[in-house]
Amino acid sequence: MTLANRIIIFLLRLLALGASVAAIVIMVTSHDSAQVLGMTFEAKFANTPTFKYFVGVNILASAYSLIVLFFPTKNLLGRIILISDIIMTLLLDSSISACLAIAQVGKKGNSHAGWLPICGQVPKFCDHVAGSLIAGFAASILYFLLLLCSFHNVLNLYSLKA
Amino acid sequence: MTLANRIIIFLLRLLALGASVAAIVIMVTSHDSAQVLGMTFEAKFANTPTFKYFVGVNILASAYSLIVLFFPTKNLLGRIILISDIIMTLLLDSSISACLAIAQVGKKGNSHAGWLPICGQVPKFCDHVAGSLIAGFAASILYFLLLLCSFHNVLNLYSLKA
Repeated sequence: MTLANRIIIFLLRLLALGASVAAIVIMVTSHDSAQVLGMTFEAKFANTPTFKYFVGVNILASAYSLIVLFFPTKNLLGRIILISDIIMTLLLDSSISACLAIAQVGKKGNSHAGWLPICGQVPKFCDHVAGSLIAGFAASILYFLLLLCSFHNVLNLYSLKA
Repeated sequence: MTLANRIIIFLLRLLALGASVAAIVIMVTSHDSAQVLGMTFEAKFANTPTFKYFVGVNILASAYSLIVLFFPTKNLLGRIILISDIIMTLLLDSSISACLAIAQVGKKGNSHAGWLPICGQVPKFCDHVAGSLIAGFAASILYFLLLLCSFHNVLNLYSLKA
């Protein structure tokens, strides 16, 4: 792997780490309350299992990015990291997709199922969640790019040997 | 690539094709209706954008699996197929995750958001959706295995050359 490639991968991992940490912080601090028919209605991320899954995956991704940041990517270890990168990309992809599905219901509701949109009542909560999902989406895209880069490198490495 | 590897990949693609087609058929035929307060309440997959996305991704995956089934996986084409396999795995992963998030709300509801579970009213619909998600999950897992196999082969191919 050339030095330029190594720097690109290092930077992608660093950016992905930043995006995941941002996603966690923005999601965890999301909070809003509304008065509906005299009752206080409180919105927080922990009320939705999907958002908890999202935070969990991003904590895992942050820890993983931080640990792997300084690992060498040679030989067997390089292969193991590549497989772990694939799994991490799938987990990030899964968590962001699940959250987007729930966010869509929160924003638009689903009249057929009788689920009303909630963003009109708790706009601050929805804005926070939207910000967090943008950061999570960025982390997911960065991991996909990282995967393409690592993959390209591994193939080239073996091509060069040949 | 040895003949055994080629057969394994062929079979994985064939199984993934079957799983995707099953997921589409079961989802599209899901239908149930219930009487709530004298009004007829009809449940079908097309009422939920996430389920439409799921069907769309599985149609794409079926078409892709069918086309690639008979392609040779050598040289540049092999690389392009590997990248397309990664993208297809991510799309299947994304669609099944989004559907699971919605299905969880359909089954358990979310009392904090005031979204009531609907599976008590339309059990036949929920059973169909559950069946479809199992098939979709199988397709997703099969594509992940396929990815690991192709990846392993490509690496070995280049190792052998070296």
